[in-house]
Amino acid sequence: MDVQYMKRAIELAQKGWGKTRPNPLVGAVIVKGDKIIAEGFHQAYGRDHAEVDALKKINFNGEGATLYVNLEPCSHYGKTPPCTEAIIKSGIKKVVVAMKDPNPLVAGKGLKILRENGIEVVSGILEKEARELNEIFIKYITTNIPFCIMKVAMTLDGKIATYNGDSKWITDEDSRNYVHHIRSRISSIMVGINTILYDNPQLNIRIKGLEVNQPLRVIVDSQLRIPLDSNVVKTADQQRTLIATTEFVSSEKISRLEEKNVEVLTIQDINGRVDLQQLMIELGIRKIDSVLLEGGGTLNYSALESNIVDKIMVFIAPKILGGRNAITSVEGQGKPYVKEAFQLKNLTIRSFRKDVLIEGYIEGKDKYVYGNY
Amino acid sequence: MDVQYMKRAIELAQKGWGKTRPNPLVGAVIVKGDKIIAEGFHQAYGRDHAEVDALKKINFNGEGATLYVNLEPCSHYGKTPPCTEAIIKSGIKKVVVAMKDPNPLVAGKGLKILRENGIEVVSGILEKEARELNEIFIKYITTNIPFCIMKVAMTLDGKIATYNGDSKWITDEDSRNYVHHIRSRISSIMVGINTILYDNPQLNIRIKGLEVNQPLRVIVDSQLRIPLDSNVVKTADQQRTLIATTEFVSSEKISRLEEKNVEVLTIQDINGRVDLQQLMIELGIRKIDSVLLEGGGTLNYSALESNIVDKIMVFIAPKILGGRNAITSVEGQGKPYVKEAFQLKNLTIRSFRKDVLIEGYIEGKDKYVYGNY
Repeated sequence: MDVQYMKRAIELAQKGWGKTRPNPLVGAVIVKGDKIIAEGFHQAYGRDHAEVDALKKINFNGEGATLYVNLEPCSHYGKTPPCTEAIIKSGIKKVVVAMKDPNPLVAGKGLKILRENGIEVVSGILEKEARELNEIFIKYITTNIPFCIMKVAMTLDGKIATYNGDSKWITDEDSRNYVHHIRSRISSIMVGINTILYDNPQLNIRIKGLEVNQPLRVIVDSQLRIPLDSNVVKTADQQRTLIATTEFVSSEKISRLEEKNVEVLTIQDINGRVDLQQLMIELGIRKIDSVLLEGGGTLNYSALESNIVDKIMVFIAPKILGGRNAITSVEGQGKPYVKEAFQLKNLTIRSFRKDVLIEGYIEGKDKYVYGNY
Repeated sequence: MDVQYMKRAIELAQKGWGKTRPNPLVGAVIVKGDKIIAEGFHQAYGRDHAEVDALKKINFNGEGATLYVNLEPCSHYGKTPPCTEAIIKSGIKKVVVAMKDPNPLVAGKGLKILRENGIEVVSGILEKEARELNEIFIKYITTNIPFCIMKVAMTLDGKIATYNGDSKWITDEDSRNYVHHIRSRISSIMVGINTILYDNPQLNIRIKGLEVNQPLRVIVDSQLRIPLDSNVVKTADQQRTLIATTEFVSSEKISRLEEKNVEVLTIQDINGRVDLQQLMIELGIRKIDSVLLEGGGTLNYSALESNIVDKIMVFIAPKILGGRNAITSVEGQGKPYVKEAFQLKNLTIRSFRKDVLIEGYIEGKDKYVYGNY
């Protein structure tokens, strides 16, 4: 039954998607006998933690009950008082958690306090699922570098555009809607300048009710070629927009972009191109915990080579385009030998009405999500 | 229960894979009360049909029983006497079939004879599954053109080789073994000359127990560039080998290939290249009911453009290679607009230990499998 209740806690946690940042997604279930007597979740940053949200519903009377929560309860004073205190006072006799706090400075402290107060503690139920749920939180809290998801929408033969540049639309409406939902869960979208020049996208969320979560737009533009009348520049007063460039660009162009509310960030270069690792550090400093990379084939390869990508999401449409000169999802120089390929781990496959979504973690980078357990 | 028994019949039918050609795969289950009293299947061309194979096990005494079979019983004298006769004599009271005979000249005849002899007949149980099981048989018997399966092994970014031509190995052992099993189920493998020049493959089955089913090797080589010391030519005395070429080639080279037991077939050309539709007709005449197209990107695109491909099997390895100049699964000129892409229908997805297999039917060509129902 532990697994069932923890599943429910994770389900509840997901209701907070896009609203809890920089806090994690947390859900809680309180069980007495074999009955759920209260449920709660962390609804948004600054609001009650999941444990307290649930305890409130039973007036903090948890005498003899068991609490299920997907993350170790906090034991420190932050925006709200420590959850351990509320749990101990309530009379809860047992606490089951999926994972410890990923922050090495506090990991285990909350559980220790509970144990010292005579509460039975079980840890590690559905840990993998709980870690994947909070993969963004875990990486950012432990490294201060954003979690980077490379998103690709391609045909079954790996093309993201025809030989003459047409790309509307590779994937169907279901997949495109899903991407808008993902955009609402992350704090920034990153593209290369070529995407701006060819597609002139808006890079916003166009789903009713989710528009409040507009992510930061990050454009990698080493030579500052971005047109002042591009959609992203024109709407920079409505949605935060950052252009990452190098020192080899005109300061006049920078001024004109800044007048239009665009933040221009000069980053050290590697062979004339923005150092993407440095850019990720800068974004982390700006409290950006996550990047959805929606670049073309060139930026995608640079991102992989720079080792900034943690996870890949590939939407595959049941179509074949062909074309020696068509655009593929990952280009650049490429690896010379198959044995040097970037490897993916922990693959999951999901079917939409028409398209298929394959997700996986870049080998070596999966340690941020799965590392401690 | 009808569905359960028919599932079992289809399961039995599959035991004949690769051995029944040009006959279909057929399995039969005889049920009395709620008990299976006999099972049978068509084991190989020339052997008993599934119905008779099952009836033999109960000494042709089917009094009051029901027969489940995935294909309408035959009513004509071929290598064996008509199954309808044996069924009627046995006392079977009810016959359930998944699909009628696909041959329009005899479709329904067997069922009519059974009905005229007082046997209850039900048709259409698991028809889709039964049609997919015998897709090769259905297309070939109704058109005399082989069923063509395009097989691709690629990375998650659509590459079948790195920019410098390395392709060993994109997919893992499980997938490659599975391909050898497929090779044992079809009557020919087709590649383009580039595959011979770059990879020098053997194009045989290297799985113990399946070596007896070596398929015909078909090489599309419009300019007859094939080296006399290539693996396929060197082994042509052990495995049937056919080279499709055009009239613009040296008759001396033809003679030297023929001396080595290679069949050289001169096909009319389209702009100097072998007309693939004509080649398929020629293969059909040679009793080839199926072609596994294992070509490179160029031949794959020509095959799609020539409208000879019925089904696509794409093995996707969880790897990323990148490379603007890497080789992709389908190349050639390519379609100029996304809306003109080749569309796939009836997608199925299957997970291997590491790789993913996506299968689908080319829109418009799926009529051969699903057409009549």
